[in-house]
Amino acid sequence: MALLDHINLKAKTDKNTGFGTNSSSYGGRFINKNGVANIEKKGMNILHRISWYHTLIDMPMWKFMTIVLAFYVGINFVFAAIYFGIGIEYLDGISNSDSDWGKFGKAYFFSAQTFTTVGYGHISPKGFMTSALSAAEALIGLLSFAIATGLFFGRFSKPTAFLKFSHNAVIAPYENITGLMIRMTPFKNTNFTDAEAKMTLGMSIEENGQMINKFYTLDLELQKINSLSLSWTLVHPINDQSPLHQFTKTDFETIHGELLVYVKTFDDMFSSTVAARTSYVFSEIVYGAKFVPMYTRNFDHSKTVLDLDKLNEFVPVVLG
Amino acid sequence: MALLDHINLKAKTDKNTGFGTNSSSYGGRFINKNGVANIEKKGMNILHRISWYHTLIDMPMWKFMTIVLAFYVGINFVFAAIYFGIGIEYLDGISNSDSDWGKFGKAYFFSAQTFTTVGYGHISPKGFMTSALSAAEALIGLLSFAIATGLFFGRFSKPTAFLKFSHNAVIAPYENITGLMIRMTPFKNTNFTDAEAKMTLGMSIEENGQMINKFYTLDLELQKINSLSLSWTLVHPINDQSPLHQFTKTDFETIHGELLVYVKTFDDMFSSTVAARTSYVFSEIVYGAKFVPMYTRNFDHSKTVLDLDKLNEFVPVVLG
Amino acid sequence: MALLDHINLKAKTDKNTGFGTNSSSYGGRFINKNGVANIEKKGMNILHRISWYHTLIDMPMWKFMTIVLAFYVGINFVFAAIYFGIGIEYLDGISNSDSDWGKFGKAYFFSAQTFTTVGYGHISPKGFMTSALSAAEALIGLLSFAIATGLFFGRFSKPTAFLKFSHNAVIAPYENITGLMIRMTPFKNTNFTDAEAKMTLGMSIEENGQMINKFYTLDLELQKINSLSLSWTLVHPINDQSPLHQFTKTDFETIHGELLVYVKTFDDMFSSTVAARTSYVFSEIVYGAKFVPMYTRNFDHSKTVLDLDKLNEFVPVVLG
Amino acid sequence: MALLDHINLKAKTDKNTGFGTNSSSYGGRFINKNGVANIEKKGMNILHRISWYHTLIDMPMWKFMTIVLAFYVGINFVFAAIYFGIGIEYLDGISNSDSDWGKFGKAYFFSAQTFTTVGYGHISPKGFMTSALSAAEALIGLLSFAIATGLFFGRFSKPTAFLKFSHNAVIAPYENITGLMIRMTPFKNTNFTDAEAKMTLGMSIEENGQMINKFYTLDLELQKINSLSLSWTLVHPINDQSPLHQFTKTDFETIHGELLVYVKTFDDMFSSTVAARTSYVFSEIVYGAKFVPMYTRNFDHSKTVLDLDKLNEFVPVVLG
Repeated sequence: MALLDHINLKAKTDKNTGFGTNSSSYGGRFINKNGVANIEKKGMNILHRISWYHTLIDMPMWKFMTIVLAFYVGINFVFAAIYFGIGIEYLDGISNSDSDWGKFGKAYFFSAQTFTTVGYGHISPKGFMTSALSAAEALIGLLSFAIATGLFFGRFSKPTAFLKFSHNAVIAPYENITGLMIRMTPFKNTNFTDAEAKMTLGMSIEENGQMINKFYTLDLELQKINSLSLSWTLVHPINDQSPLHQFTKTDFETIHGELLVYVKTFDDMFSSTVAARTSYVFSEIVYGAKFVPMYTRNFDHSKTVLDLDKLNEFVPVVLG
Repeated sequence: MALLDHINLKAKTDKNTGFGTNSSSYGGRFINKNGVANIEKKGMNILHRISWYHTLIDMPMWKFMTIVLAFYVGINFVFAAIYFGIGIEYLDGISNSDSDWGKFGKAYFFSAQTFTTVGYGHISPKGFMTSALSAAEALIGLLSFAIATGLFFGRFSKPTAFLKFSHNAVIAPYENITGLMIRMTPFKNTNFTDAEAKMTLGMSIEENGQMINKFYTLDLELQKINSLSLSWTLVHPINDQSPLHQFTKTDFETIHGELLVYVKTFDDMFSSTVAARTSYVFSEIVYGAKFVPMYTRNFDHSKTVLDLDKLNEFVPVVLG
Repeated sequence: MALLDHINLKAKTDKNTGFGTNSSSYGGRFINKNGVANIEKKGMNILHRISWYHTLIDMPMWKFMTIVLAFYVGINFVFAAIYFGIGIEYLDGISNSDSDWGKFGKAYFFSAQTFTTVGYGHISPKGFMTSALSAAEALIGLLSFAIATGLFFGRFSKPTAFLKFSHNAVIAPYENITGLMIRMTPFKNTNFTDAEAKMTLGMSIEENGQMINKFYTLDLELQKINSLSLSWTLVHPINDQSPLHQFTKTDFETIHGELLVYVKTFDDMFSSTVAARTSYVFSEIVYGAKFVPMYTRNFDHSKTVLDLDKLNEFVPVVLG
Repeated sequence: MALLDHINLKAKTDKNTGFGTNSSSYGGRFINKNGVANIEKKGMNILHRISWYHTLIDMPMWKFMTIVLAFYVGINFVFAAIYFGIGIEYLDGISNSDSDWGKFGKAYFFSAQTFTTVGYGHISPKGFMTSALSAAEALIGLLSFAIATGLFFGRFSKPTAFLKFSHNAVIAPYENITGLMIRMTPFKNTNFTDAEAKMTLGMSIEENGQMINKFYTLDLELQKINSLSLSWTLVHPINDQSPLHQFTKTDFETIHGELLVYVKTFDDMFSSTVAARTSYVFSEIVYGAKFVPMYTRNFDHSKTVLDLDKLNEFVPVVLG
């Protein structure tokens, strides 16, 4: 491989990435686009390996609501079956003239009325077994809604970095040299202050005849900003200290490399530190392009308008 | 413009504000009085652009309660209409002698009794459709109250900096020179410790024939205090390092400038870091004035009394 | 006053306390024993000056439960009165043969059954006014319990430093000199890590003929510890850098001084930083005493036993 | 004891552990395997010494559910007994022909229907005493579920370090010398960033004829990593600065020592800093062993697979 020829020996390596150096243990990218490490866990009991709370909190709303609904329909079915099994005659208010399906249906809705504690009372339990079962069902119902309350609150109060990254990175002109740039923007009605960014480059290269993962810290033009209200373009100047010094378009096409981006900021609305990560494999880096501005002032010059749809918009430029 | 004449070249510029330098992209002030950046977002779906949770959490109580009430009245209306559509004869306990309006009214209150799970039972569902609908309504009711519980808790547990800033900044005598001063005070029964303040000056000035935004860090007499229980006056000494050195009253009147203030402190009551921001455009800076003291000891000398109404009180002074 | 004679000019003053220097504006101690600043706020509307959430969260459990109970009894009384006013004939199930008190009582319990959504249904609303009122009451009931849920959760999940301080500080022998010591201990089943302490001395002294508040940073033998599981004795060595150097027993008795103690630690159980403050006025400092050990190993040497009752136990010692 | 012979005088002692030096006050290990300090508290009222919230939050789910169930069964029993005591004739809907047990049973289920607010109404209260009691029970029921909601939410939203440590530490070859190593791994679907570790060695040694606890800071090869997604092996190189320099297998067997490990990391999912501790007494250190790799790439090289079951797997090695 030709790669070793232009490794920049002046570039700062990074030993603290938390990723190992043995390239042959790794599959695919280090970090997925959504910021989660590209790792699959196995071993241990799956129930111990999964935080079901986080799973329920992070899934899309429609999935979550489907689970809630399925649970409600299902648990009432189970209870209805038991009421039916004990004997429909222990439910006062169900007439004997009903068909079996009709009886089961009434048991089912009695169950729903018990589970939700609506308890109209036109059907009511009689006898120890049915009374005890309905007492248990009301308890389970209330505890289920207690858990649902927690999950709803967990879902919407979870501090999340409402931050979007451009899909691509670009190599653009920067001062007299070139720079590697990515762009991010807050996209919701929250306030970010004290934002801090880190960029790391991971490459799979040959060293002493073996393929290893090598990581480099990429210096940024600005590493911290006081307030992240507009778009923020992270710029890594490709100067003679950069590991990307003298990289050509072909290098980006042939080398197996990945840019890891990590941002931490304080969200005034959550009063909490929030973090976001993403990564760009080399095929997601556009060589010779620059981002177009995302904001401008409004018609009467009283406000600055940020156009979120322009986050990933860039135009081609010829690099010296 | 005469401005460039007395730009202080010794003053520290600040590149980390997160605001851009291109003056012509900006409309109005950088930051509003309430600390929120003066930015309007467009693009993307509005549902993605808005955090409805934060919106509901931050709105005034009366608005929030109006929404809750409207939702309750509205959803019962919808359900009543469906019950009515299915057929009022499937609601046991509504007599045929009622007028249509009377029947709808009873369906409406049956809906309310189901939604809140009060379920008196003098009206009860009959038949599959109506029973299923009422089972669904009870579920929706409970989930709605689960969400309401979360919103109420979110509203009052949200860590917020209960900190008020003086409406005006003043240029007052300070030691042998002058100082730019603003004042803040905690106003609720919370405890602030480890408070830290930052002041930045933004001005729209001409450089190389173009109007640009230029930002300066304003040094403070005290940047950190251990405990913020009384009023705190932030003082920027206008010495020969200050970008405001040799600024005259006229300069404050003619230049388009803005003072950005940012405070971060630890709130013992929330056990959380809270942040507050505000800004003063030059027209909100009073040239030649000093704040009057806000606190004094009480009648028996056993307590210190802080008068919140004096936060913005100042008296004119003649500057050397 | 003789005090100025032995002010130690080498002692480090502290300008960042957040307390003012004008002694005549101050009443009583700076900080109360419980860590809250000894300040009374006035001005502004009291509703804006009070965080009712914090007030309800911080009050003792019995007070909180009394308020909950009073609210429940009171609101049912109000609703009962309105039901009564509309006319008891709109409540089905209340017989005409009841006395007025009996009718009111039944309206009262109907209200309670509606507010809690228990809704037995042996009494049920009739007519628009009463039906609408009961629908409103059920809503108010559920929202009240939503708020109560939030308050309960707020009460017990609030990160609090479960840390007790010795009631007294002592001046004890320390190495070859003396030291000012106070002691603290965690007292609940939580884990503190990375504890950090700060001690400040405030004294009211004469300077240029005026009484001013002067603050000194007191150096500590250990300012940080990794784990705070046992008792921690803060020691300020009274060496020749200390503002207390050459202070006599009489000085502590005559000078108006106060020791401010501030501790910040990370609580593993809350996963939150918690803070605690206290203060010792000079009359709470015991000259010539040392704390007795608080912990020892148990009978079979398998555990260390910490006796919380010994926190403030000390024995007199003669100082060189 | 021979120990003092090879104490490394160049090793860094650690005074900030928070553990005392008087060895004879200590029983057993400093910190238990689960990270909690091995300390028993006595004194004070036990109700003040225990945070029941933390106790309920930290207990296993089955224990918690048993307590909830026992409370539900028990409180209904108490209320049933009072209803029975007041007189079963005040409960409408219980026929006189029931046996005493039958009556008590009905009172019991009436209580359950009131406590859960299901309130079917086939049994309903009559008379002041019974009505008031059921109104009180409905209140207590709702408040209990308010508390349960808080506890459930507290249980699953509590920021916890989902981090497992290897059961053993090993002394393995490291570069040209040996190293003391322990290994940790995240085991759930959470994201750790900015992990930081600390290792402290505690030994009970003789100094001036007395047994004292002496603590040493153990330097680590890497103290911080940016992302903790895979396993992390903490390595303390046993070089000539190490307090373990020249320790033999016999030393680890005879000396009373303990390795304290402390990790702090930021959990993206909780948006909170979480901490974990553990300890290894010398008998848990395996002399001459090295950990086997825990991760490898998957079949199609698209993911890295982490095998949690290998956390504590090691193979023997001969040390030079």
